[in-house]
Amino acid sequence: MENKPQKSNWKHKLHEIIYEADTSEGKLFDVILLIAILASIILVMLESVDSFDAKYHDSLIIGEWVITILFSLEYIFRIISIKKPTKYIFSFFGIIDFLSTIPIYLSLIYAGSQGLVALRALRLLRVFRILKLARYIGASNKLLLALKASKAKIAVFLFFVLIVCIILGTVMYMIEGAENGFNNIPKSIYWAIVTLTTVGFGDIAPQTPLGQLISSVIMILGYSIIAIPTGIVSSEMTKTPDEHNTSTQSCPNCLKEKHREKAVFCYNCGSILNP
Amino acid sequence: MENKPQKSNWKHKLHEIIYEADTSEGKLFDVILLIAILASIILVMLESVDSFDAKYHDSLIIGEWVITILFSLEYIFRIISIKKPTKYIFSFFGIIDFLSTIPIYLSLIYAGSQGLVALRALRLLRVFRILKLARYIGASNKLLLALKASKAKIAVFLFFVLIVCIILGTVMYMIEGAENGFNNIPKSIYWAIVTLTTVGFGDIAPQTPLGQLISSVIMILGYSIIAIPTGIVSSEMTKTPDEHNTSTQSCPNCLKEKHREKAVFCYNCGSILNP
Amino acid sequence: MENKPQKSNWKHKLHEIIYEADTSEGKLFDVILLIAILASIILVMLESVDSFDAKYHDSLIIGEWVITILFSLEYIFRIISIKKPTKYIFSFFGIIDFLSTIPIYLSLIYAGSQGLVALRALRLLRVFRILKLARYIGASNKLLLALKASKAKIAVFLFFVLIVCIILGTVMYMIEGAENGFNNIPKSIYWAIVTLTTVGFGDIAPQTPLGQLISSVIMILGYSIIAIPTGIVSSEMTKTPDEHNTSTQSCPNCLKEKHREKAVFCYNCGSILNP
Amino acid sequence: MENKPQKSNWKHKLHEIIYEADTSEGKLFDVILLIAILASIILVMLESVDSFDAKYHDSLIIGEWVITILFSLEYIFRIISIKKPTKYIFSFFGIIDFLSTIPIYLSLIYAGSQGLVALRALRLLRVFRILKLARYIGASNKLLLALKASKAKIAVFLFFVLIVCIILGTVMYMIEGAENGFNNIPKSIYWAIVTLTTVGFGDIAPQTPLGQLISSVIMILGYSIIAIPTGIVSSEMTKTPDEHNTSTQSCPNCLKEKHREKAVFCYNCGSILNP
Repeated sequence: MENKPQKSNWKHKLHEIIYEADTSEGKLFDVILLIAILASIILVMLESVDSFDAKYHDSLIIGEWVITILFSLEYIFRIISIKKPTKYIFSFFGIIDFLSTIPIYLSLIYAGSQGLVALRALRLLRVFRILKLARYIGASNKLLLALKASKAKIAVFLFFVLIVCIILGTVMYMIEGAENGFNNIPKSIYWAIVTLTTVGFGDIAPQTPLGQLISSVIMILGYSIIAIPTGIVSSEMTKTPDEHNTSTQSCPNCLKEKHREKAVFCYNCGSILNP
Repeated sequence: MENKPQKSNWKHKLHEIIYEADTSEGKLFDVILLIAILASIILVMLESVDSFDAKYHDSLIIGEWVITILFSLEYIFRIISIKKPTKYIFSFFGIIDFLSTIPIYLSLIYAGSQGLVALRALRLLRVFRILKLARYIGASNKLLLALKASKAKIAVFLFFVLIVCIILGTVMYMIEGAENGFNNIPKSIYWAIVTLTTVGFGDIAPQTPLGQLISSVIMILGYSIIAIPTGIVSSEMTKTPDEHNTSTQSCPNCLKEKHREKAVFCYNCGSILNP
Repeated sequence: MENKPQKSNWKHKLHEIIYEADTSEGKLFDVILLIAILASIILVMLESVDSFDAKYHDSLIIGEWVITILFSLEYIFRIISIKKPTKYIFSFFGIIDFLSTIPIYLSLIYAGSQGLVALRALRLLRVFRILKLARYIGASNKLLLALKASKAKIAVFLFFVLIVCIILGTVMYMIEGAENGFNNIPKSIYWAIVTLTTVGFGDIAPQTPLGQLISSVIMILGYSIIAIPTGIVSSEMTKTPDEHNTSTQSCPNCLKEKHREKAVFCYNCGSILNP
Repeated sequence: MENKPQKSNWKHKLHEIIYEADTSEGKLFDVILLIAILASIILVMLESVDSFDAKYHDSLIIGEWVITILFSLEYIFRIISIKKPTKYIFSFFGIIDFLSTIPIYLSLIYAGSQGLVALRALRLLRVFRILKLARYIGASNKLLLALKASKAKIAVFLFFVLIVCIILGTVMYMIEGAENGFNNIPKSIYWAIVTLTTVGFGDIAPQTPLGQLISSVIMILGYSIIAIPTGIVSSEMTKTPDEHNTSTQSCPNCLKEKHREKAVFCYNCGSILNP
C-alpha cells in the first residue's frame, strides 16, 4: 500500500510536467520539446541536401537516432502518465506524435520511408498550446470563427472556381493542343488553375492568338474574382469585432442596448446600468 | 378513359422522380445523375491522356456509349414527363443537356467534335439544385446579390484596366520590339494583361532597362488597383448583413417589410408593429 | 446681317451635334465616333501583326487615311463650333485628339512615328461621356472619391514598397551577383518589384540558398502587405455607401435620425416625417 | 565669457538648421539633404551597371567622394550641434547615418564592402520627417495602428502559412524528386512559398500528374487564404473610423471621453453631457 500512492504520485508529477505548463519543470519540458521538434525538422531538411548529407552523414544519422529516441520516450511517458491512454492515443496530437515517430525506425531499417516525417511539421502546431499564448489563441479563434461563418460562401466560391477551370481548361486544350504544351485535359485544367489563381508558372503558356485572348479573359477573371473570398472574410471580420465592443446588457429603465462595454450609466436616460 | 389517367399518373410519377427530390426515388435519381455527370467528365479527361487512351481505348469508348445513352434517355424522359416540353428545352439546363449529349453521337461517327463536352462541366451546376442545399443556395444568392449591386463599379474598373493594358501594351511594343518577344501590339497587350493581373508567365519578359522600368510601373499599378474590386465587393458584403439588421416582421397594416430591428412603429403607415 | 445669324445658327447646330447627345443627330455622331475610335485602334493593332500586314498592307493604309481624315475633320469642326476654341484645344480631350491625329500624317510621310497612336486608346475614355451613362459615371465617381480619400495612405504605402524594393534589390544583387542574372542594382530592384508584387516572371530567379531564403521573405511580405491597399480602399468604400442608405432627416417629434431612405413615419415615435 | 554664449549661439543656430525645418535655412538644408540622399542612391546604382561604370568610372568615384564627405560633415555637425550626442548616435537614424557613411571609406580603400550602401535607402525614410507632411504622417500612423492592432492575427496567419509550406514542400519533394528540380526539402519549401504566395517564377514547376494535382490545391489555397490578411486589415481599418463615431466631447463632470455620438448622459457618471 505504500508503493501504490507513491507510484501514482510519480505519475501525477509526470503528468504535470508533460501536459501542463504551470510549474517550472513543465515549462522547461515544453521548451525542450519545442527545440527538439524544430531540430528534428531541420535534421530532415539537411539530410535531403546532397552536399550536406555527403559531408555529415554520420552526424545526421546519430542526431536522427537521438531525436527518435527522445520522441519515443515522450510518447511512452505521455501514455503512462495519462489516466485514459486511449484518449491521448486517438487524439489529433496523439496520432501525429505516433506517425512522426514510428516511420523513422522503419526508415533506419528499410531506406525510403522517411516520407512521413512531413508530419513532424504538424507537431509545430503544439507551439500554440505550449506557449499558452492566450492572445494568439484568441486571435486564431477569431480567425477560425470568421472562416467558419463564411464556410458555405467559400465552398460555393471554390466550387465555382473549379467548374470555371474545368470548362476553360478543356477549351484551351481544344484551341492550343498538344503541340503547345496542352497535352491533355487534366494538364490544361492544371494550367487554367495556375492562370486563374494568378500564379502563372509559365512552364505552359498559350501560343496561339485565340489562346492568348482566352487566357486574357481567364486572367482578368482571376484578378477580379479574388475580390470575392476577400470580401467574404472582410465582411465577416468587420462584423465580429463590432459585436465585442458594445456590452450585451440593456438599460433596466429605457431598455436601450449597445452600451459601451464598461458603461455604468445608460447613454440614453441616465439610469444606472446593472453591473 | 381508363388508360389516360393511368398514363398521366405514370408521367406524374416520372416528373416527381426527375424534377423533384422529395421522394426517396427522386433522391436516388439525383444521386445517380450526379455520379453519371462526374463519370462523364472524368471519362473525357482520361480519353485526352494519350498513355491512358492507348491502354484502355475500348473501355473508354464503351463507357462513353453507356453514358451517352443514359443522358439521352434522361433528356427524353425530361421532355416526356413535363407538361410544357418547350419550357424545359429552351431553359438554361435544357440547352446544356442537349449540347452535352448530342455531340457525342457526332464524335462517335465523325471524330473530332468531342469539343463541346466541355459543356458537360456546366451540368455540374445542377449540384446546387440537386442537393437542395438551401444553405449553399442562400450563400450563392448573397454572393450574386453583392456582385449585382457592384456591377456598374466593376464594369468601370474592368474598362479602365482594359484601356490601361491597351496603352501600356502599345508603349511596350514600341520600346521592346519584336526582337524581345513583343512581336505585335495584340501580343504586347496580352503581355500587359499578364503583368497587370500579377500572373506573370514569363514567356515574354522585358529586356531593355526602359521596358523594365515601365513594367515595374505596371506591376505596382496592378498590385495596387487589385484593391479596387476587393474594396467594392467587401463594402457591398459588409453592407448586406446590415440589411439583416432590419427585422423580419412585416407591418400588420400595410404589409411593408424591412423595418429597423427595434422599430416600434411602421415607417410607412405609422401603425404599431407586433413585438 | 442676314448671313451672320445663319452662320451662327449653323455653328450652333454643329455644336449641338458634336458636343451634346440630346438630339438624334448628336447620338448618331457619338456612335459613329465611338466606332471610328475602335476601328482606328484595331487598325493599328493589325498593322503591327506582320503576317496580316503583308497580306492587307494596302487596305490598312487606306483605312488609316480614311480614319485620319475623319479625325482631322472632327478636330476642325470641334474648333469651329465652339465659342472659345482655346478652351477645347487645351482641354484633356483636346490635347489627346490632337496628338492622336497629327502623328499619322507624320507616320505616312516619315515611317516610324506611329508610336503616338497609343494615345488613341485614351480617346476611348470618351465612352463614358458619350454614352451618358449616369449610373456608370456615378460608379466611377464613387471609385474616384474613395481613391482620393485614401490618396495619402496609398502614397505612404507605395513609398514604403519602393524603399523595400530598393533595399531588398540591392541585398539580392550582393548575394546572387551577375552570374545568376542579377547583373546590376537597377535590374535587381526590378526583380524585387516583380517578386514583391507577386508577378514572378521567372526570367530572373534566385539560385543560391540564401537568395532563395530572402526571396521567400520578400514573397511572404508581398503576399501579406497587399492587404494594406485593399484594407484602405475597403474601409473607405464601406464608409461611403452607408451614408447613402439612411435619409439625412431627423424626426420632428423625437429628433431620432437614420431613418430608412423613403420612410414616411418615424420608426421610434410614429410621427409623420417631413417629406 | 563672451566667447561661450557665442559658441553656444552658433551651436544653437546649427541645431536649428539641421534638426528643425521652420526657418528658411532649415528648409534649404533639408531639401539639399534629400537631393544628396537620392543622388547617393542613384550613384551606387549606376556604379553597378557595367557599361555605365566602364564609361564614367572616374566621375562616379568623384561623385562618391563628394557625397561621402558631405554625409560625413552632416554626421559630425549633427553630433556637435545636439546637447546629448549619444541620443542621436544611438537613435534609429543615427545608426543608419553612421552605417551608410563609414562603409564608403572602407570601400574606397578595400574594394567590395560597398554592400552596406543599401542602408542609404533607409535614409529615404527621412523624407517623412523632412517634409513635415502632417497629412502623410497621420496616414502612416493610422496604417501602423491598424497593423499593430492586427499583429497577433497576422502572426498566427504567417505561422500557419509557414507550417503549410513546410508540409507541402516536403510532400512535393517526395512526389517530384530531384529529377524534376525539387532537389532537396529546403528548395521544395521555397517552391511551396513561391506557389502559395501566387508568385510562380516557374524556374521549378511540377511535372508529374500527382505533383500538378497537389500544386493545384496549393494554388487554390493560396488564392483563397490571401483573403485572411486582407480581411484582418480591412476590418481593422473599417473599425478605426468607427471610433470617430464616438463624439469628441468629454464629460463636464468626470472628464471621460469617447461617448456614443448622440449620448445625452455620461456613460460613466450619469451627468448630462453638453450638447
